[in-house]
Amino acid sequence: MFKKILIANRGEIALRVIRTCREMGIKTVAVYSTADKDSLHVKFADEAVCIGKPASGESYLNIPAIMAAAEITNADGIHPGYGFLAENADFAEICGKYGIKFIGPTPEMIRKMGDKITAKETMLAAGVPCVPGSGGLLESLEHARQLAPEVGYPVILKATAGGGGKGMRVVWNDSELEKAYNTAKAEAAASFKNDGIYMEKFVEEPRHIEIQVAGDQYGTVCHMSERDCSIQRRHQKLVEESPSPFMTPELRAKMGEAAIKAASAINYESVGTIEFLVDKYRNFYFMEMNTRIQVEHCVTEEVITFDLIKEQIKIAAGIPISGKNYEPTMHAIECRINAEDPYNDFRPSPGLIKVLHTPGGHGVRVDSHIYAGYSIPPYYDSMIAKIIAVAQTREEAISTMERALSEYVIEGIKTTIPFHQQLMRNEKFKAGDFTTKFTETFDLE
Amino acid sequence: MFKKILIANRGEIALRVIRTCREMGIKTVAVYSTADKDSLHVKFADEAVCIGKPASGESYLNIPAIMAAAEITNADGIHPGYGFLAENADFAEICGKYGIKFIGPTPEMIRKMGDKITAKETMLAAGVPCVPGSGGLLESLEHARQLAPEVGYPVILKATAGGGGKGMRVVWNDSELEKAYNTAKAEAAASFKNDGIYMEKFVEEPRHIEIQVAGDQYGTVCHMSERDCSIQRRHQKLVEESPSPFMTPELRAKMGEAAIKAASAINYESVGTIEFLVDKYRNFYFMEMNTRIQVEHCVTEEVITFDLIKEQIKIAAGIPISGKNYEPTMHAIECRINAEDPYNDFRPSPGLIKVLHTPGGHGVRVDSHIYAGYSIPPYYDSMIAKIIAVAQTREEAISTMERALSEYVIEGIKTTIPFHQQLMRNEKFKAGDFTTKFTETFDLE
Repeated sequence: MFKKILIANRGEIALRVIRTCREMGIKTVAVYSTADKDSLHVKFADEAVCIGKPASGESYLNIPAIMAAAEITNADGIHPGYGFLAENADFAEICGKYGIKFIGPTPEMIRKMGDKITAKETMLAAGVPCVPGSGGLLESLEHARQLAPEVGYPVILKATAGGGGKGMRVVWNDSELEKAYNTAKAEAAASFKNDGIYMEKFVEEPRHIEIQVAGDQYGTVCHMSERDCSIQRRHQKLVEESPSPFMTPELRAKMGEAAIKAASAINYESVGTIEFLVDKYRNFYFMEMNTRIQVEHCVTEEVITFDLIKEQIKIAAGIPISGKNYEPTMHAIECRINAEDPYNDFRPSPGLIKVLHTPGGHGVRVDSHIYAGYSIPPYYDSMIAKIIAVAQTREEAISTMERALSEYVIEGIKTTIPFHQQLMRNEKFKAGDFTTKFTETFDLE
Repeated sequence: MFKKILIANRGEIALRVIRTCREMGIKTVAVYSTADKDSLHVKFADEAVCIGKPASGESYLNIPAIMAAAEITNADGIHPGYGFLAENADFAEICGKYGIKFIGPTPEMIRKMGDKITAKETMLAAGVPCVPGSGGLLESLEHARQLAPEVGYPVILKATAGGGGKGMRVVWNDSELEKAYNTAKAEAAASFKNDGIYMEKFVEEPRHIEIQVAGDQYGTVCHMSERDCSIQRRHQKLVEESPSPFMTPELRAKMGEAAIKAASAINYESVGTIEFLVDKYRNFYFMEMNTRIQVEHCVTEEVITFDLIKEQIKIAAGIPISGKNYEPTMHAIECRINAEDPYNDFRPSPGLIKVLHTPGGHGVRVDSHIYAGYSIPPYYDSMIAKIIAVAQTREEAISTMERALSEYVIEGIKTTIPFHQQLMRNEKFKAGDFTTKFTETFDLE
């Protein structure tokens, strides 16, 4: 087992890793930028090393500084958290060269899943469903016409150079195809000076549902059921829950099996997540694999009563996993509390926390690095806390979350608490009736 | 279901009840003494009524003031918490006369279990094991000699007027009886001017293990497994856990059955606890029944993932219980954090909390009514927080508790945190090797 782990991260995830290390009797080293010298992860670690200036490139992404900190403190493991260097294969490789264990998968696994095309090819070869489509560009209207029935209507045409909905058209049947093809091509040419378009199956009423997996160094892989992360804003997850209100035992079995296939295809070791899009008919398609711990891992921890960071560290230490799959026994919801003003387009709101009162009691977990008197620096991600509410049913978990949100007192900055409070009272959310488009039509009172 | 519940209590239990009421959509009324006007239970309730001066007799035990508060706020239920009026049958009766539901058992049930002699008679008649003994006084040495083999050696002779170990003798066999009888009698006469002595079975290496029960208004009773509360100081519980490290599946089944018999014998409705002494041979004996929620109920909530306050309110509202018994699926430990100086004979240490940082993260629940800037009044119980650590194993729960204790920052007053930190590192405690006498020989470093 590790003797001392350096956490190459900051904020709540650094604290999260420190907590488990402390429980495992492993010493910890925090690294911090000059902007983070008063951060809780610095206070709670056994040792702390300043690695540079506030800008991430000069501190949390500064590989030489981090490796130097690991060397001088004699750390035998490095936990990358999420973000920053967590999916940087070069960093994982350099750790290996220094003889320090990177607590995560091997550089090869990170590379395979980091490259979208390789990842999709690997998944298709392993029999994991991916969104069907043309693969490359459409050569002609005739090509599109041949392909569309194979892909299956509805399909979507997308500009290869695209973004922001330009050069994008949903086509519901054969009769619409010609017009849509021509318009998309013209729009793409006008917008991007590149009229290349490709075709994909149009995923109707998509939900983001991901499967947590774990694999050890001996080829054993298991899954730990799903998290529904459909409540997003501009592709940023805001709320996650497990089980998904859209899940059925049959779908869980199928998605769990696919996730195990996906992880096994690259002999994955460590904890990781296979992200899927699920359509209204409960067809599911591989999106990507996150080869790291995720922000929302706590939701799974609460429903299977299991410490995923401990598992991740044990796997890195060469301890085999049991191989058993996990089913949720409870319902958990996580709200990400950001230092942002939800009434002002979620503009970041860093600054001094003057008064803080943290919720507690039955069914409430709070993961946060803030404290009264702490000043949130403007340089990093605006997430300042995660509240996880756990109960026997989804309805009760929502009630517990509402109660916890009402107890949370954070004075001095704006936070997204009002957004979450209104979301928890929203009838569609309460009914579990939402897709990844939900927040597009959700207006704050 | 209730529309508005008045909580006739203060501190963490008042807050605990408010939290569940809020989750159930029930309005709450706090009552408070002038010393508690800044208390969190006052801030978090929907309404709050001042009921008198700091002394409990003039506020939290002031029945007319409490009933007046319930009437003016139009409350339809009163939750008594623990302590104060929680086991006051007259109060429960008065609630009934006012047409306000007392959230607990009926006055008759409280009376039956409140009187030690009636309680023991009721238990014996129901077939619940009680500590065998002479019942009344020993008439003579000859009487003692006849009785001792029936009761079973070892026995203990106790002065009826006794206390502090005076006039008390443990007798291990027949040959010791005469001398012990004479000494005990002489000592009793000298110490209390009353030489009456009685005999009881001597419970060897006793543990305090209690069974949580629930009964509804329709005669259904279930048990929710045990809590081990052997870690006490002068009969005050300090640490509680579930499951008990001394428990076996066979013993749990037997004690659970006995607890159900005990509760059924008085048609018990509400949640309650049957307290037993368990000896080194795993014989168990009824001590008393607590006809209320207990401080340590959270330990059970965490291992069976169940809200006991919600259950209590539902039962009072006439909702039937399932009748299913519960087995612990996790291990939970609770440390009671008191505003006391463990290095100064646990002397109370009220005063202003200048800095507060509450632990969080995986497996940590905190129930507390304190906040930074709050001044702990000197008039009431010194408990200021409960930390509950939950994990898959006892060893992990201890590690989680140690980690949580190390994160708890309470500046301005003395607390019992150092006591708990040392206890969690104690080899005997870690081995589960302790009795109710444990703290008598546990010295702080």
